[in-house]
Amino acid sequence: MNEEQEIIQKYFLPIADNPESLMLSNDAAFINKQENMVISSDMMIEDVHFDKLDDPFCLAQKLLRVNLSDIAAMGAQPYGYILNLSIPKLNHELWLKRFCKGLAKDSEKFNLKLFGGDLGSSKNIFMSVTILGLVSKKFHKNMIAHEGSEIFVSDTLGDAGIGLQIKKGKFSKLKKSEKFFFLSKFNTPLPQIKLGKSLIGIADFCKDISDGFLKEIKFISKISNLQANIFLSEIPLSRQLKNLYNNVGNKKKIWELILCSGEDYQLFFSVNPKKKNLLKKKRIKNIKRVGYFQKGSGLVIYDQNKKIIKFNNDGFSHF
Amino acid sequence: MNEEQEIIQKYFLPIADNPESLMLSNDAAFINKQENMVISSDMMIEDVHFDKLDDPFCLAQKLLRVNLSDIAAMGAQPYGYILNLSIPKLNHELWLKRFCKGLAKDSEKFNLKLFGGDLGSSKNIFMSVTILGLVSKKFHKNMIAHEGSEIFVSDTLGDAGIGLQIKKGKFSKLKKSEKFFFLSKFNTPLPQIKLGKSLIGIADFCKDISDGFLKEIKFISKISNLQANIFLSEIPLSRQLKNLYNNVGNKKKIWELILCSGEDYQLFFSVNPKKKNLLKKKRIKNIKRVGYFQKGSGLVIYDQNKKIIKFNNDGFSHF
Repeated sequence: MNEEQEIIQKYFLPIADNPESLMLSNDAAFINKQENMVISSDMMIEDVHFDKLDDPFCLAQKLLRVNLSDIAAMGAQPYGYILNLSIPKLNHELWLKRFCKGLAKDSEKFNLKLFGGDLGSSKNIFMSVTILGLVSKKFHKNMIAHEGSEIFVSDTLGDAGIGLQIKKGKFSKLKKSEKFFFLSKFNTPLPQIKLGKSLIGIADFCKDISDGFLKEIKFISKISNLQANIFLSEIPLSRQLKNLYNNVGNKKKIWELILCSGEDYQLFFSVNPKKKNLLKKKRIKNIKRVGYFQKGSGLVIYDQNKKIIKFNNDGFSHF
Repeated sequence: MNEEQEIIQKYFLPIADNPESLMLSNDAAFINKQENMVISSDMMIEDVHFDKLDDPFCLAQKLLRVNLSDIAAMGAQPYGYILNLSIPKLNHELWLKRFCKGLAKDSEKFNLKLFGGDLGSSKNIFMSVTILGLVSKKFHKNMIAHEGSEIFVSDTLGDAGIGLQIKKGKFSKLKKSEKFFFLSKFNTPLPQIKLGKSLIGIADFCKDISDGFLKEIKFISKISNLQANIFLSEIPLSRQLKNLYNNVGNKKKIWELILCSGEDYQLFFSVNPKKKNLLKKKRIKNIKRVGYFQKGSGLVIYDQNKKIIKFNNDGFSHF
């Protein structure tokens, strides 16, 4: 066996101990779950999504979690994944050991199987996961909101966006404990799998906030042919973010970070007033109503004084 | 809509016109084929697998074909794929237009659906495909050869390896028509889908030659706990490669390129003597017996004079 095969046997086979992987010795994995499935993929690229010196354990967790967030948004149950990974040759064993520990930890936490993938070497690190989730007949197929439906988010927004700024050297005056909080929200978002499933049959649509809330809500507003109204006073913020907000001069800039940075991986969804009782019965913690849809088009945001406020920047776009 | 969403609508939606893609507006695609499936993934990275200036049309074809080759090796029928693509911002529309034409051409040729994926921007080009194939109860699950089984390859070896050398500036004295032949074998390998399916129930194992024949056969030999014997006199070569071979001094070097370069994407498989009649009945063109398995271990290669010959290099390894 050459070194590439040895690496696969040593690091990946122990975390691919499932019938589907066929012991990682075939050209493909075998999927015999004859159920409806959803499939999605997200990549993470050095110098775009992370730095070369970032901890491989955390990178592995984030890679799985951003993919799991898509599974959550579909109302699916995590099933398994295919990994593509290309890393520099220098210190690759050390790097892989830690990376695979991160994969193992979150694979167990989220009940996810490693099916197979492709391993290579390159100057810059590249990684992607294609994830499969199982769904029953009903899942979040629809992306269209209804007139009068109320808009909800699953939990606080903006913490990960602040974490990203801290990684870039901003907010240097924050206490260490606060920096740690925001960074951990950026590094290890929590996919809302249980919530995604519990909203089936209740939410008009369900989507995860990966590229910034304003960008995502504009997308839904456009394809629904409705006007979205969002109230800043209703956006849930963490205690730490409220502290930060109170201590900075340029409040609008902070709101822009909260609403446009993305990386939150919370879910947002809308619920028709007729179905609000169903939602109440679920007694879901942390979800917060932040606005509603009405006839019209575009996105209207109201500040704390109920005045319309405009932001220049919508959210992250690669192009 | 921001530019990223516009690009998806403009270039990718027209080639994702299938129910599974959900119009590319959801966080995942929906797979309702309740059949057994195989899943595999291969990536292609700038400066490792190709150059920035390579034609995006050909890159798209090769990306699909190396993935389809894994589907062929499993004896599966192509179903659909998830695409990950990250490209520089400069001239991205021009690049994408041509890339998507290549995807469209081969998606039609191989009856393959685009389900979804992830699009990003980065300094260097990165692309990967995760492919799904449909299988009946029987497929090439086994990777173990039997004692006495004969080893076959699906067609000529080495042309793609020479093509790669030409890309690197070697063999500069070859005629243009010959260069074109080898380069096209490197750029657009032909996945052996029909053959892979027809060998189900006949071959002990079936695998594609992506990393070089010697490396692949050693792998099978090791996990089968058998000795593989290969005869150079039996390896099928194209007319163009025979010409080249006759005109170079270092014959061993050429054999090394033929057997270790990889990128052939032919299938190799072994057939138990008891099943040879089944194989004959299939009347499969181009397949060639190149050796056999016997008790023992390792790989033994015989030259044209039936003398044992050793090669230093096995095949491509990233590490």
